[in-house]
Amino acid sequence: MAKVWDVPHLAAGADRPVLDPETVYVYNMRFCPYAQRTILALLAKNVPFKVININLKSKPDWFVESTFGKVPVILYKGEIIPESLITSDYVDELFPGPKLHPEDPTQKAKDRVFLEIFNRMIMAYYKCAFAKDAEARETTVKDLIATMQPIENEIEKRGTKFFCGENPGMLDFMMWPWLERLPMLDCMGISLPEFQTLKVYMDNMWGTDAVKEYGLSTEDHYKFTKQYVDQLETIDYDFLIPK
Amino acid sequence: MAKVWDVPHLAAGADRPVLDPETVYVYNMRFCPYAQRTILALLAKNVPFKVININLKSKPDWFVESTFGKVPVILYKGEIIPESLITSDYVDELFPGPKLHPEDPTQKAKDRVFLEIFNRMIMAYYKCAFAKDAEARETTVKDLIATMQPIENEIEKRGTKFFCGENPGMLDFMMWPWLERLPMLDCMGISLPEFQTLKVYMDNMWGTDAVKEYGLSTEDHYKFTKQYVDQLETIDYDFLIPK
Repeated sequence: MAKVWDVPHLAAGADRPVLDPETVYVYNMRFCPYAQRTILALLAKNVPFKVININLKSKPDWFVESTFGKVPVILYKGEIIPESLITSDYVDELFPGPKLHPEDPTQKAKDRVFLEIFNRMIMAYYKCAFAKDAEARETTVKDLIATMQPIENEIEKRGTKFFCGENPGMLDFMMWPWLERLPMLDCMGISLPEFQTLKVYMDNMWGTDAVKEYGLSTEDHYKFTKQYVDQLETIDYDFLIPK
Repeated sequence: MAKVWDVPHLAAGADRPVLDPETVYVYNMRFCPYAQRTILALLAKNVPFKVININLKSKPDWFVESTFGKVPVILYKGEIIPESLITSDYVDELFPGPKLHPEDPTQKAKDRVFLEIFNRMIMAYYKCAFAKDAEARETTVKDLIATMQPIENEIEKRGTKFFCGENPGMLDFMMWPWLERLPMLDCMGISLPEFQTLKVYMDNMWGTDAVKEYGLSTEDHYKFTKQYVDQLETIDYDFLIPK
């Protein structure tokens, strides 16, 4: 069955969609890890929403004019809220249901600090995936592994099923999009050592509803990313949409 | 009378201070605008705190080992929380008193988005203050002015005494450190056009307790910054401390 995000990516020239102010919309791109954060927060909070996918290589004017030109953006009740972390916090605070952030301000601050540490892995991941030659790749793989160790250490130290406890919370969902993409490096001939605790954690994450519902196979991630690695002029954003 | 922040900046080799876990400490640098955010949040919430000033050109090992090597850092009850925005939110959520963030999640999100827009001014400000030659400076001044216009427009649009209403709130305090430093550009021979509404706003900010208490004169800001502009090897961090 087609999901709400199975809609074509709108390109320059496309009509601006007519919005119902009482509906939550997300300007999204199906393969964007930042936008995935917002989608995961909405799914985890059981907030109904619609998706407007944007062709990021050929952006509609109305998208560029009303935003920072990036996804995700949430549109709701006349407001236009961009940025993955801001939209996710907004969803968490605005809608009922269990809070994704810890209620304890100290734990919340510590989780936000850990996300800063996790960011180093994100940076290393991109350098690795888009390394220009074998030599550059070798250095970047080493850097990536070095940034993964603190993640393994942290989940081990916490000793819980998820970073946020027995259920996944904000920190889990904000990190997940890049963890989901890590096995893709294998398709690029980059092999990473096994991080045992992280592996168990990732299996646990794949067992949760939000992650399962929006998650993509390594094959699909690779099919998409390869278009960028090969520097294709036209990117096919729509290949997953059921015909 | 000496204030809690009138303490020497500890350099490499200095003993690690002995901390009382029930006291809030800030690793600070008297002239750091990021650390100023945290101090303003603490002052605005009336939280008692102590300051450990750090010499950022010659950092003590115990500072580097337990932090990201940057200020601000809050130390409280055995926790070590870095990052200006995270520490400020932590202070706001942990301690009683009027909330600095708007209670309305939509307004809170919008204020956080505006801070992203304000960040462009921060970047432009540094490029301007540290421009290498007259030609570079001319371009950077234009960029700076372009990033200031949205700030003028926003305070005008809000039509309130402060960005956050009749009292200053989180957004006001998170932006203030760079607004306080703007007039310093004048000492560097950089003249900016007058932004009328911003000027009134800045006078209002100077009228608030927290800003008045920690704020520095343009002369002192310039005296400090000139050491960096002149690329001095040794920076005097302590010239404001009463002998």
